[in-house]
Amino acid sequence: MPAIMHQAIAEHAGILLIMAEQQATEGPITPRASDYAQWYQDIIAAAELVDQAPVRGCWILRPNGYGIWEAIQRDLDRRFRRLGVQNAYFPLLIPQSFITREAEHVEGFSPELAVVTHAGGDELEEPLVVRPTSETVIWATLRRWIRSHRDLPLLLNQWANVVRWEKRPRAFLRTTEFLWQEGHTAHATPEDARRFALTMLRTYEDFADQVLCLAPIVGEKPAHERFPGAVATFTLEPMMQDGRALQAGTSHDLGANFARAFDVTYQGEDGASHPVYATSWGVSTRTIGGVLMAHGDDRGAIFPPSVAPTQVAIVPVPGRDEASTRAVEAAAAEAQAQLTAAGHRVAVDNRPGLRPGAKFFHWERRGAPLRLEIGPRDVDANQAVAVTRHDGQKRRVPLSGLVPAVADLLGTVRTELSTRARAFREARTKAVEDRAELEAAVTEGYALARWCERKSCAEEIQAVTRATIRCYPFEWRDDRYLPLPDDPGPCAWCGEPATRRVIIGRAY
Amino acid sequence: MPAIMHQAIAEHAGILLIMAEQQATEGPITPRASDYAQWYQDIIAAAELVDQAPVRGCWILRPNGYGIWEAIQRDLDRRFRRLGVQNAYFPLLIPQSFITREAEHVEGFSPELAVVTHAGGDELEEPLVVRPTSETVIWATLRRWIRSHRDLPLLLNQWANVVRWEKRPRAFLRTTEFLWQEGHTAHATPEDARRFALTMLRTYEDFADQVLCLAPIVGEKPAHERFPGAVATFTLEPMMQDGRALQAGTSHDLGANFARAFDVTYQGEDGASHPVYATSWGVSTRTIGGVLMAHGDDRGAIFPPSVAPTQVAIVPVPGRDEASTRAVEAAAAEAQAQLTAAGHRVAVDNRPGLRPGAKFFHWERRGAPLRLEIGPRDVDANQAVAVTRHDGQKRRVPLSGLVPAVADLLGTVRTELSTRARAFREARTKAVEDRAELEAAVTEGYALARWCERKSCAEEIQAVTRATIRCYPFEWRDDRYLPLPDDPGPCAWCGEPATRRVIIGRAY
Repeated sequence: MPAIMHQAIAEHAGILLIMAEQQATEGPITPRASDYAQWYQDIIAAAELVDQAPVRGCWILRPNGYGIWEAIQRDLDRRFRRLGVQNAYFPLLIPQSFITREAEHVEGFSPELAVVTHAGGDELEEPLVVRPTSETVIWATLRRWIRSHRDLPLLLNQWANVVRWEKRPRAFLRTTEFLWQEGHTAHATPEDARRFALTMLRTYEDFADQVLCLAPIVGEKPAHERFPGAVATFTLEPMMQDGRALQAGTSHDLGANFARAFDVTYQGEDGASHPVYATSWGVSTRTIGGVLMAHGDDRGAIFPPSVAPTQVAIVPVPGRDEASTRAVEAAAAEAQAQLTAAGHRVAVDNRPGLRPGAKFFHWERRGAPLRLEIGPRDVDANQAVAVTRHDGQKRRVPLSGLVPAVADLLGTVRTELSTRARAFREARTKAVEDRAELEAAVTEGYALARWCERKSCAEEIQAVTRATIRCYPFEWRDDRYLPLPDDPGPCAWCGEPATRRVIIGRAY
Repeated sequence: MPAIMHQAIAEHAGILLIMAEQQATEGPITPRASDYAQWYQDIIAAAELVDQAPVRGCWILRPNGYGIWEAIQRDLDRRFRRLGVQNAYFPLLIPQSFITREAEHVEGFSPELAVVTHAGGDELEEPLVVRPTSETVIWATLRRWIRSHRDLPLLLNQWANVVRWEKRPRAFLRTTEFLWQEGHTAHATPEDARRFALTMLRTYEDFADQVLCLAPIVGEKPAHERFPGAVATFTLEPMMQDGRALQAGTSHDLGANFARAFDVTYQGEDGASHPVYATSWGVSTRTIGGVLMAHGDDRGAIFPPSVAPTQVAIVPVPGRDEASTRAVEAAAAEAQAQLTAAGHRVAVDNRPGLRPGAKFFHWERRGAPLRLEIGPRDVDANQAVAVTRHDGQKRRVPLSGLVPAVADLLGTVRTELSTRARAFREARTKAVEDRAELEAAVTEGYALARWCERKSCAEEIQAVTRATIRCYPFEWRDDRYLPLPDDPGPCAWCGEPATRRVIIGRAY
């Protein structure tokens, strides 16, 4: 067989292979309305975010999935530094006895621990737990770092992996190992600790709103939903498109509980010894699940621009002759160069043997917030067609002023995603007065209901409706968080006297 | 007691407390000549880089220590991206059976494994190892990611923690848990894999030289020193100030070993199935130990500017009256603002109750590469006195042109540290011809010796001299690595015929 034929056959085989792969990886996406859980799995697969790990409950973060986490890291890390927080790193392995030092903490975490019993070929004298969170090892250390009032406040953060054994795992949402940041701070007074916990709540809210476009409700958890060992837990509760809540970040006021358990005190200006007050706060890869469920549609993922693995997907549309196709390719390459230089994450889809329509479909599934189509006529007119993923709108943008036009469009996308999420959540949050209304509200979204604040009542609500008390909602006004004004009346569930309203909803 | 006196006493107590702390944390540094190992511990303590963890062999990275790692991460990550490498994340926990799939790999790592046997309250059916490195779990995954020649090369990296049980732990150098990056790539041909392994060696060398100023020898490990499962291991071997080597990064050509063990093949353009060739490469927090041991002196750490936790320490020298002191403070604040805006890490030492001399001493111990002293006369003359840490030289720099002057000086520091390390290593590397010369050379530094390439001979050298074969050294010429020209003659140790010379040295 002549070499040239060999090549032709090989090329043909190559194209067939691409088409076969296309089918394999670009399977159908289940519509949200028919099976929301399956839709979630499908859009994750379509965007190539994760892969199965050999250990049940663990997932591999593929480059697209890890890229989202890197974008989250960059943004949060900058915010932490502005607050004077310093990064550090505490060990993965913690003596089992440490976990038992804070009474509520051990009760909360014991069922989820992974335990190292053998190492270096021998059985260990004391088993080590793989950190589920680091309060214990950090407070055991701070005993040496905190002596005088001048050592306070001490503001630390670490970027780390943690392990919590998960019985019902789900990609991003509930994984045995996950990545997160955990902040830990030490303060001289309970007021300072409370203030910092709320500063961090506000930092998270701004991040969740401006960067992830999640428009979360923020507020305080009821006592029975607090972090084990905390005196107050503040939370972000964005609503997903099935009306359920996803806890997307928490900030805890730990009071003096951990400092007391690990015997940490400081010498005040008065020369006397005082207790130390603490906060801890964290955001994890779980948040990526929230982004997917809040924004995606039946065609695939939709990423907010700041965290999108690919922000701009350029699809060159070939012409009828080679010269015009070359001109299109040159214009696409030039657009990519300009946008990349401006700091955007840009892909040009030059895959051979695929029609433009298949490429549009491909980038829609992957959630690229902006697609630029460039064909021969566009080159002649010195323009591109820009299509925004979230609403499918087409606009003409000038190739000569591409960088500011794209920056504008991505800004618009961000605002519209955020507005859409807020409108959705507000439309599905109902003030309710009785059981029937509460039950109806939580099938669609959040109930804003009076609650008697008894744990037993919350348990009954959950048993019947599968909904939980998400939080006492806060409003941000005059530079601080305010709870809703008291609104006395009967508990919407049990009729007993209640003072305040809470957000009740089903949750992930 | 009047309130004002109360305050005076409290302030006085505060100053006494600072002085007491000063003594506690600023203990003496053992000279290198009297006890090099103790000196190493002392400079780490002086720079507040780490703290003891509760689990033996693990250390806590304090903000100063972790900051060095963050600087290393930023620089390397940028280099990887330029090569087209994508970041991803693979799980911490690996089924024990995976480790046994590659025969040499299991032999190499088994004695160092930490094993999780219990999780979620139950004993596990199969124990899980905490990753000592990720080749096995990555190659088990790549089976699904690599199908056709178009999937190659596949270039991945992850930033992660790993655990290898350490019997003789030492801060940074040998720690049970450490942080690193591990790159893993897949290629269509053995030549592509070899080329990439060498590209990465060159990337590491440039980083080690330009950023860490370590002036390493680079080369290839002898067969018996290869990574378990590799067909070739390339290494960086900078010399420490006691003449010993520190392996500061490795790049492995894995051949088809891991792909074969995990049954990964690809379909070529010819339609047939082909084996996949691999590399892996890593740099860890161990490198920080190398930076400390290569550059520090008897007064403390000396950090290369790019990784220094504090690059510029500004010490205001008070005047005799309040007005001149205020002017000094204002000039120091302005200098800090300008230098910070220019991207430098800058501290102003405003601690009360300490003389300037004590502050100079403090920043010398902490290794800040540049100190700026600003006193009343300097303010009048619109200048600062700049002192470079590595040589104690004083220069006057204009306050009005501070940013370019500091950039220049830090550049000079970098060049001089690198030149000094290179000169030191070259002066202590001796071409040797026989046993006596070899034995003498390795007490001071490296021997460049003919070696018969038999493992048994290497073992004898080590038993007698405590030195090991570090590498077949490479030279970078005409854009590629070249081994030394063959130089046949008798093995310096055993007298048997040898073809090539190797670097022999004691090592950490």
